[in-house]
Amino acid sequence: MRNLTLLTDFYELTMMQGLMNAHMENKQAVFDLFYRKNPSRNGYVIAAGLAQVIEYIENLHFEEDEIEYLKSIGSFDNDFLLRLKDFRFTGELYAVPEGTVVFPHEPLLRVKAPILQAQLIETALLTIINHQSLIATKAARVKWAAQGDGVLEFGLRRAQGADAGLYGARAAIIGGCGGTSNVLAGQLFGVPIKGTHAHSWVMSFDNELDAFREYAKNFPQNCVLLVDTYDTLKSGVPNAIQIFQEMRAQGIVLKNFGIRLDSGDIAYLSKRARQILDEAGFPDAIISASSDLDENLIAQLKLQGAQVTLWGVGTNLITSADSPALGGVYKLACEFAEDGREIPKIKLSENPDKVTNPGYKKIFRLYDKITGKFKADLITLEDETLDGDQDLTLVDPNATWKRMTLPGGSYEIRNLLTPIFISGECVYQSPSVMEIQAYCKRELNTLWDEHKRLVNPQIGYVDLSQKLYDLKQNMIRTLRG
Amino acid sequence: MRNLTLLTDFYELTMMQGLMNAHMENKQAVFDLFYRKNPSRNGYVIAAGLAQVIEYIENLHFEEDEIEYLKSIGSFDNDFLLRLKDFRFTGELYAVPEGTVVFPHEPLLRVKAPILQAQLIETALLTIINHQSLIATKAARVKWAAQGDGVLEFGLRRAQGADAGLYGARAAIIGGCGGTSNVLAGQLFGVPIKGTHAHSWVMSFDNELDAFREYAKNFPQNCVLLVDTYDTLKSGVPNAIQIFQEMRAQGIVLKNFGIRLDSGDIAYLSKRARQILDEAGFPDAIISASSDLDENLIAQLKLQGAQVTLWGVGTNLITSADSPALGGVYKLACEFAEDGREIPKIKLSENPDKVTNPGYKKIFRLYDKITGKFKADLITLEDETLDGDQDLTLVDPNATWKRMTLPGGSYEIRNLLTPIFISGECVYQSPSVMEIQAYCKRELNTLWDEHKRLVNPQIGYVDLSQKLYDLKQNMIRTLRG
Repeated sequence: MRNLTLLTDFYELTMMQGLMNAHMENKQAVFDLFYRKNPSRNGYVIAAGLAQVIEYIENLHFEEDEIEYLKSIGSFDNDFLLRLKDFRFTGELYAVPEGTVVFPHEPLLRVKAPILQAQLIETALLTIINHQSLIATKAARVKWAAQGDGVLEFGLRRAQGADAGLYGARAAIIGGCGGTSNVLAGQLFGVPIKGTHAHSWVMSFDNELDAFREYAKNFPQNCVLLVDTYDTLKSGVPNAIQIFQEMRAQGIVLKNFGIRLDSGDIAYLSKRARQILDEAGFPDAIISASSDLDENLIAQLKLQGAQVTLWGVGTNLITSADSPALGGVYKLACEFAEDGREIPKIKLSENPDKVTNPGYKKIFRLYDKITGKFKADLITLEDETLDGDQDLTLVDPNATWKRMTLPGGSYEIRNLLTPIFISGECVYQSPSVMEIQAYCKRELNTLWDEHKRLVNPQIGYVDLSQKLYDLKQNMIRTLRG
Repeated sequence: MRNLTLLTDFYELTMMQGLMNAHMENKQAVFDLFYRKNPSRNGYVIAAGLAQVIEYIENLHFEEDEIEYLKSIGSFDNDFLLRLKDFRFTGELYAVPEGTVVFPHEPLLRVKAPILQAQLIETALLTIINHQSLIATKAARVKWAAQGDGVLEFGLRRAQGADAGLYGARAAIIGGCGGTSNVLAGQLFGVPIKGTHAHSWVMSFDNELDAFREYAKNFPQNCVLLVDTYDTLKSGVPNAIQIFQEMRAQGIVLKNFGIRLDSGDIAYLSKRARQILDEAGFPDAIISASSDLDENLIAQLKLQGAQVTLWGVGTNLITSADSPALGGVYKLACEFAEDGREIPKIKLSENPDKVTNPGYKKIFRLYDKITGKFKADLITLEDETLDGDQDLTLVDPNATWKRMTLPGGSYEIRNLLTPIFISGECVYQSPSVMEIQAYCKRELNTLWDEHKRLVNPQIGYVDLSQKLYDLKQNMIRTLRG
């Protein structure tokens, strides 16, 4: 495993030395990792990346050569560098499970640890969670647009480096892709890998028919032929049909076979190809498409009656091209005095959306008991409890005249934040990626379609408990005089 | 070093088996890696990533567990899996050096190898080169907008995974950034790392003044104070000035000190802060800014007279947010028969821009002898030569009535493609990242400003030799009847 301990911003290290010299290094601090705005103007985010956060924290340590490097910079005291030798994470981490639907301002992760430790891990936690949650969310959008068709992740060559391809594939599977072209992702995460051949295969043979025939001989059970090297309808599709006929004549039972369109007008070509394939007696032939697709284009193509059965999505998925970063942040929520007293902390801003929620908090998710559907999330302080038998009035923190009362007994309660590390020990076993995918599908089923449409969706309600709301307002008043 | 041999698309492996079974595995093939469209509507691309391509190729091998994994899929023959055990790259690779300015349709890399090998490496080569070239190009745009001010890369937390942060930082330095916040990049690439403190530092103390004073005590020679935690002009800047006065009173010679603005209107706040700092006797104080910046916003802020001296650019640089993928492709250009005869290959398309350039090719770059500035690139077949004493007529391949004649003796010639691997052995020593940065700066100096403006720039001429042009036209005519 790579040691990513130095995968951090320089200021984390300068602050760590400063905290040590101010004798504050063991002060317990709580940081919330949350985001403020859904990417791609989506209605929600799919949380992802927790398994890699666990690996990162378990492997956190400074090797000799890393300390030597820090020494060589000339900015750090020897006392501080010595302190790094036995550095490890001894704190607490709670998180929402991977594949969970989350909304703006909710803590996806909550770290409680000596501030020196909590500070170091800020950057890598953000890098990992921001990236995978972004791609899982994009994949869920694409899968939604495909209305039940298969979606494959094909973006490795356009990913922002090897990790972006690898963990992007992982996240795409979590968000709903049925497979990836990325072989390493297949090996590391046990996810299905897919693909057949490229244009270069066709160009390596004297003609397209020979190329197709040789491919079919090698992979009779995975024979999706790329038909646009020379001319899709005049050459590619008729040649593919000839090969399918030859296979059938040889007694091969055709399954997982068909064509791939990689250029031209996918709506027109897929409809024509469907017709030709059907007339030739191959109504089961897959028609896959892979040409600069994203969720919006897929939705449009389906509106035009495109006859694609399998969508291969590359660049726009693996980079979340219209929205290539999730703006997750990691903000100090409170500290604990030596006597255990909580000291809530707040970051002010001219922009009300950027004022943080203070305190050691948790998230209750409320479901309608009859439909099982999501009603709202309620962020409370850690010591608050909810009794599902009582009426519950929810208040929009940004518009307090917007209220909703859930009658007692009508709703179910779930505590979203799950213990991951306790006293530095991992107490959580990550599910497999395919299990996370199945869980994510169930999560998406708890949302109404109104939350899931691609354009202008309804964003889930996230309210603050009265106690948290009052704490926040009091702190703002005190600080702004 | 990580083994990235399986970081490839599944179809590379299926094609490899197919080639082996068709007894074509040792056929020598030439692939060109090039792109068609500049990202961010820029006038050029900065080539980057070659050092990582070299590492990847040198480390290319299948471990036992990887072959076991491929076996477990059930798609591959035992003969093929056995063949992978002693797989290594034995071919030739030519590339333009990192930091070189390149234009659409030029081969950045040219691979000549047994087709089995050339096929496997396609995906990783594209992933590496597409990513780093993209970010180096974006950095060059940002640096250009900053008109001589310093630019720092601060995007790790929003990068698409660890590698995107790490190699993105490397590429950003190549493109002109003076440093990065990414400590691991500092260690691995010997590049300057920068940063001071976050909001959480200020919030950890009872008040802003104590926080600033403690920071200054720790890092008197790197004291850029973040002034927007509570109120930039009413609290942050006056408190920073008080600290600078205390430091001066203690006899500390102030250097590398100042403030950082991270929210609010950067034009207004920087002008006011400049005035206040100057009046307090700190005209040398740095004013750095870091708030969702990109090259277009920096250009606008400078037009409004913003008094920022150092720009910290995060999300929009590390993801190249407006254009998050470089669309590099890897296309078969020719094969060689057993007798050494070249068999040129072409990929047709309805879109003329997507028709490939056939043959085993090289790139001549032509400079004006007097100004040293770039005149044009000329792609020729490998066996063509140029004599700088002869008049040279260049013809635009897409509009053959557009011609330019360079008089003999007026131009200098450079062969851009450099040998990197010969017979599988690396024959190239990568320069350090800081050397590549210096080379890239010289490269950008060979371009006229017209090529470098942010909007609607002049794109460098890339012409084909008459011999290459004729070959291409003849092949198109033959294939399309």
